[in-house]
Amino acid sequence: MTTTAITNIAGLVTNDPALGDGSPLGLIENAAVVIDGETVAWVGPAAKAPAADTVFDAAGRAVIPGFVDSHSHLVFAGDRTAEFNARMSGRSYSAGGIRTTVAATRAATDAELEANLLRHLDEARRQGTTTFETKSGYGLTVADEARALRIAAAHTEEVTYLGAHIVSPDYAEDPAGYVDLVTGEMLTACAPYARWVDVFCEKGAFDGDQARAILTAGAAAGLIPRVHANQLSYGPGVQLAVELEAASADHCTHLTDADVDALAQAADTTVATLLPGAEFSTRAQWPDARRLIDAGATVALSTDCNPGSSYTSSMPFCIALAVRDMRMTPDEALWSATAGGARALRRSDVGTVTPGARADLALLDAPSHVHLAYRPGVPLVSAVWQRGVRAV
Amino acid sequence: MTTTAITNIAGLVTNDPALGDGSPLGLIENAAVVIDGETVAWVGPAAKAPAADTVFDAAGRAVIPGFVDSHSHLVFAGDRTAEFNARMSGRSYSAGGIRTTVAATRAATDAELEANLLRHLDEARRQGTTTFETKSGYGLTVADEARALRIAAAHTEEVTYLGAHIVSPDYAEDPAGYVDLVTGEMLTACAPYARWVDVFCEKGAFDGDQARAILTAGAAAGLIPRVHANQLSYGPGVQLAVELEAASADHCTHLTDADVDALAQAADTTVATLLPGAEFSTRAQWPDARRLIDAGATVALSTDCNPGSSYTSSMPFCIALAVRDMRMTPDEALWSATAGGARALRRSDVGTVTPGARADLALLDAPSHVHLAYRPGVPLVSAVWQRGVRAV
Repeated sequence: MTTTAITNIAGLVTNDPALGDGSPLGLIENAAVVIDGETVAWVGPAAKAPAADTVFDAAGRAVIPGFVDSHSHLVFAGDRTAEFNARMSGRSYSAGGIRTTVAATRAATDAELEANLLRHLDEARRQGTTTFETKSGYGLTVADEARALRIAAAHTEEVTYLGAHIVSPDYAEDPAGYVDLVTGEMLTACAPYARWVDVFCEKGAFDGDQARAILTAGAAAGLIPRVHANQLSYGPGVQLAVELEAASADHCTHLTDADVDALAQAADTTVATLLPGAEFSTRAQWPDARRLIDAGATVALSTDCNPGSSYTSSMPFCIALAVRDMRMTPDEALWSATAGGARALRRSDVGTVTPGARADLALLDAPSHVHLAYRPGVPLVSAVWQRGVRAV
Repeated sequence: MTTTAITNIAGLVTNDPALGDGSPLGLIENAAVVIDGETVAWVGPAAKAPAADTVFDAAGRAVIPGFVDSHSHLVFAGDRTAEFNARMSGRSYSAGGIRTTVAATRAATDAELEANLLRHLDEARRQGTTTFETKSGYGLTVADEARALRIAAAHTEEVTYLGAHIVSPDYAEDPAGYVDLVTGEMLTACAPYARWVDVFCEKGAFDGDQARAILTAGAAAGLIPRVHANQLSYGPGVQLAVELEAASADHCTHLTDADVDALAQAADTTVATLLPGAEFSTRAQWPDARRLIDAGATVALSTDCNPGSSYTSSMPFCIALAVRDMRMTPDEALWSATAGGARALRRSDVGTVTPGARADLALLDAPSHVHLAYRPGVPLVSAVWQRGVRAV
């Protein structure tokens, strides 16, 4: 295998406290990274870097682990620009929100869905994302959910079965019947393609008992739970996630003290995944990241990329919001967008730049990772390596 | 001269109400633009486009006028990452704010300042900015202010003399003496390079009487006034800008009813230029764009790009903030970032896509300009023409 040395890195974030300055970011100044095949082979001071087959001069810029976007909804078709425009312009809009996307997704061909997914993945990669999770949830029939997951599984290892996104409009008069479908025939059809099972636990979607049934059935089929929890209102989602040892409770916008305590106690098991793009695009209140971190919870940042409530694929944008509006420090936000996302996906091979880790790296057109918050909106990612291969 | 036709434009923003749908944006669907040399020669439905020497297929994407960024501070050296990091992390920081930049700028060579300017201009251009204003204000000596303007004037027509950014540290005990310098020897040295004169009218910088003296002296030397007004607190800046027929009152964060009325009455003369990047990066309150627009004021959007309080060069980011946090509609925000900026610079040749206008255009990787707010943080600008030449 050929080796590549990335040298002359002004600031390297390793996320390995054993390396560098001893902080959670494991920051090394004047650093180098040597990649061997798909893997990081060596990390340390540039002056001590071993020889490599090829050399890339970072020219005094920063290198970070590729972003781990642990929450997105990218298997969809259709467009909701008019709905967004009306909402932000204070005009009423009669069309059907998520149902618009469900109808368009069902009507799309496999090729259309895959092309749309690939377009968004390429866009995310250009912004530094090297690992992403994505979900079903716009099909809501056995066949449409299964094909969404099949298409997703061709492009990522992190596939989530979200038949329980909303109660299918086809079951508007029989939500219990839809839960039976989601925990029965639909689960059987979907489980082979998925690693995770998820549910939108919220008033108007699925209540605590329904969510428990869905997650428990998914777990029995070999899927690991994650939960859309406490986004729009207080509710049982976070407590359920912790009780069922879900990998993450996502959104966490409306939390009681007991919810925060539960997430802190479960810091090694259940990650609080915050999705500030959703609050930005719906003008909602911000999750209180400071409170969660200070209590000891493990926090991840993710885009929630979807055409309705958070149509951003930009992890740098989420970092800038997290710092400005959720009171995370620039260091915490970077960690949560990389190592935090890896924790939320229970992955130890990504989210760090340490020997043995997958060689997923982003080069910033800036001397420090702090610039991701200091320079909001500016496209700073200038090169990306994915599994050791230059992808951007 | 060669002609280029840009065809198959899903949504073309012209900012010419006489074209298209009759709205202020003059939106045309299924449009084409023909460029002849540096100028727009024809605009209309794609089906009626005249023949051209070369054809660019927009493939169903949107085209907008290039952004007109009417307020930036790009002649500087040095870095304030540590200060930003401390501020956002809730840590105290003892270094000197703007004085840090003044010291670094004075110490820089001409070549260093020019390289830094060009790097930021290139970065802005990749994000769709085709016209920009920039200022002095980090030199604060006769020689350093004049060289800042000389360097700026080599790269833009819109150069602003801001010797009155703060009272120079060299005159800490003699602010009146500094005003004498700014209105005397420094003005004489700077006026040949500048079109505009500006002052930071604010507690701790220059009061109303000082600001009036500086702007009046600048006007007598042939410069047109613009004012940093009402950013950090209520004050006389906006009223002074209107009274002196300044081209713009910039920031407008703290406005009385009388200030709003004055800007509405002066809508044809003095533009209210809002700079949400500054409020974002300092966690300050948002300017009330809705109140200004509803009163009848003319509103521009700009980046305020500078290393201390708003280190973004991204007009798309400012649009997303304007919609989310300042309650502008996506249409209003787009207008303010293009035609509004042109009004703030008293330019009729930019900010529109209409026959005779300068051929400054941005192609978005999206079907509609609304996506600039709908898809926050995502780098959507995929091609830029400046004076008819493909620049990105």
